[in-house]
Amino acid sequence: MFKLKVLCKEETEKALKMSDVIHSIEEVYKQKALGDTEVFPLIFHEFTSGVADMDIKSGWLKGSGLFGLKLVSWFGENVNKQLPALIGTVLVFDDKTGVPIGILDGSYITGIRTGAAGALGAKYLARPDSETLLIVGAGHVAVFQVAATLTLFPNIEEVMVYDPMDYRSAESFVKRIRATLDQNFHMQVKETTKFTAVKDIKNATENCDIIITVTPARAPIIMAEWVKAGTHFSCIGADMSGKEEIDPEIFRGARIFVDDINQCINIGEIEIPIKKNMITKEDIAGEIGEIIVGRVKGREYDEQITVFDATGTALLDLMTAKLAFDEAEKLNLGTSVNL
Amino acid sequence: MFKLKVLCKEETEKALKMSDVIHSIEEVYKQKALGDTEVFPLIFHEFTSGVADMDIKSGWLKGSGLFGLKLVSWFGENVNKQLPALIGTVLVFDDKTGVPIGILDGSYITGIRTGAAGALGAKYLARPDSETLLIVGAGHVAVFQVAATLTLFPNIEEVMVYDPMDYRSAESFVKRIRATLDQNFHMQVKETTKFTAVKDIKNATENCDIIITVTPARAPIIMAEWVKAGTHFSCIGADMSGKEEIDPEIFRGARIFVDDINQCINIGEIEIPIKKNMITKEDIAGEIGEIIVGRVKGREYDEQITVFDATGTALLDLMTAKLAFDEAEKLNLGTSVNL
Repeated sequence: MFKLKVLCKEETEKALKMSDVIHSIEEVYKQKALGDTEVFPLIFHEFTSGVADMDIKSGWLKGSGLFGLKLVSWFGENVNKQLPALIGTVLVFDDKTGVPIGILDGSYITGIRTGAAGALGAKYLARPDSETLLIVGAGHVAVFQVAATLTLFPNIEEVMVYDPMDYRSAESFVKRIRATLDQNFHMQVKETTKFTAVKDIKNATENCDIIITVTPARAPIIMAEWVKAGTHFSCIGADMSGKEEIDPEIFRGARIFVDDINQCINIGEIEIPIKKNMITKEDIAGEIGEIIVGRVKGREYDEQITVFDATGTALLDLMTAKLAFDEAEKLNLGTSVNL
Repeated sequence: MFKLKVLCKEETEKALKMSDVIHSIEEVYKQKALGDTEVFPLIFHEFTSGVADMDIKSGWLKGSGLFGLKLVSWFGENVNKQLPALIGTVLVFDDKTGVPIGILDGSYITGIRTGAAGALGAKYLARPDSETLLIVGAGHVAVFQVAATLTLFPNIEEVMVYDPMDYRSAESFVKRIRATLDQNFHMQVKETTKFTAVKDIKNATENCDIIITVTPARAPIIMAEWVKAGTHFSCIGADMSGKEEIDPEIFRGARIFVDDINQCINIGEIEIPIKKNMITKEDIAGEIGEIIVGRVKGREYDEQITVFDATGTALLDLMTAKLAFDEAEKLNLGTSVNL
């Protein structure tokens, strides 16, 4: 009989501090660069085309002694049933014994680790004196991007938010953001930091140091000719073939990093520029973990355009879940059940 | 937030009645024959060659409205750590909403559903007036084979047990079997039923109606020339390439059924006779579900040799797990936790 730790969404939220999650995700990228991780093949099944599917992502983090999986169900009609359309379940095992450690709801984990990923792209590639942040897409993941980036760049003076679908989403997002950062992330943002909903994406791009894109777009939102020298992009939204958020021209001459080279070529933001022969695989400077371990240089000069293409793997979820179990233990959160 | 049902091994044991499990497994075979099931690709990873591995088997039972997975860890060195070498974890989801239903320890589930599979082979292929049962292999799964077969054939007069590795295993098995059937399965076996540990497998085979093999053998234990007319075989042990328990000659002229045609050709008892060209795929009469739905005839005449090759799928585990959750609900067993 084993003791299985169970955390519900609220407990997972309480257990995770953004600064710890960022540190954990950095550790995953590092382990990947050192060859200490394995991602297992993806299982995908569509129950009804365009209506309901599920996937199982799994992998092994040798350096952290754990393996496991995240099963994500997407059931579009759940919105009519007072249920979330996207449901994630993460199950973590000990790699010394094969014993299950714990299970938790994967939705919060997915959001917070994705925020950490976007911000880490900025940490390793943006100019350290960056003062302006533009978030493109005011959906579910946006708040995590803001929280993570402000954690690493507390001196950001202005956070602009643009929503390509509906300006009002951006407006209501910036109205709530201070309270959300305070309540959900215990972050007291400087009084002087401005949060602005923007209507003019061209103008916002022209005046921005760090741009993080988190939309499900299938056509570029940001055009190359608007981008000022020295801008950094963390492209988060593109996670399946056909998705793209920024003009493929931006990649010409940019210093490009990815989280996983093969996955990004297949489903990331670099998929389309490579398919259009605007860049080749050789134009990818490396994986972000290679900067972290000191193998490859990140930004080379201030005026350089940099891009981090992040598609995400189960490893991020497993590491964040393990962190949640460990912190929950300290805080006496969650339920231990016999399995 | 969802309510997740958690059953530990002891609760799973209490919740499951052998007759119900047999009925559930019959239902899985039936759904498979009707095209109402899907088995997703297997994920397998070896952590250390010959020492530790894990696999994820997953699938969808349309007819029962559920999908899910079983993750099995095999860590050979666990025996030195007072832990089981084989650890299974089953996670079941609702196929209308993608919501997780429950999680349970997979070891008991695996044993009992495998017992049910072996016995169902006998139900659909053995002569109904069968009086003698031979179990080859006195390991962990043997008791489930006896319990399931006696559930379907209460008039069996003698159960012989042969262990190819160690006669004493067979001896201690038959010593304990009545008490085990009583305590674990609430089965009161007739006073007149004999349980015999056998040393001479040739003689036992010559005097037997139903033979169920449950060993990890890689060379035949039962030779063709010993087999009397009308014998039925349920071959359970072979579940990976290279394993075999009975003489491939037995298959010539026999009426052969499988649980899953492609899987059995790759990893089942029929793998080797097919590779040796002693039979071809066309010699397989069908899948067992095709007998159940009335599409294919099982045994054709009393003297025929019949074989059921069962390799198992996640579908059996998912169906049995769902049964356990439903029965546990009625019996007020297990823990409901928020996820």
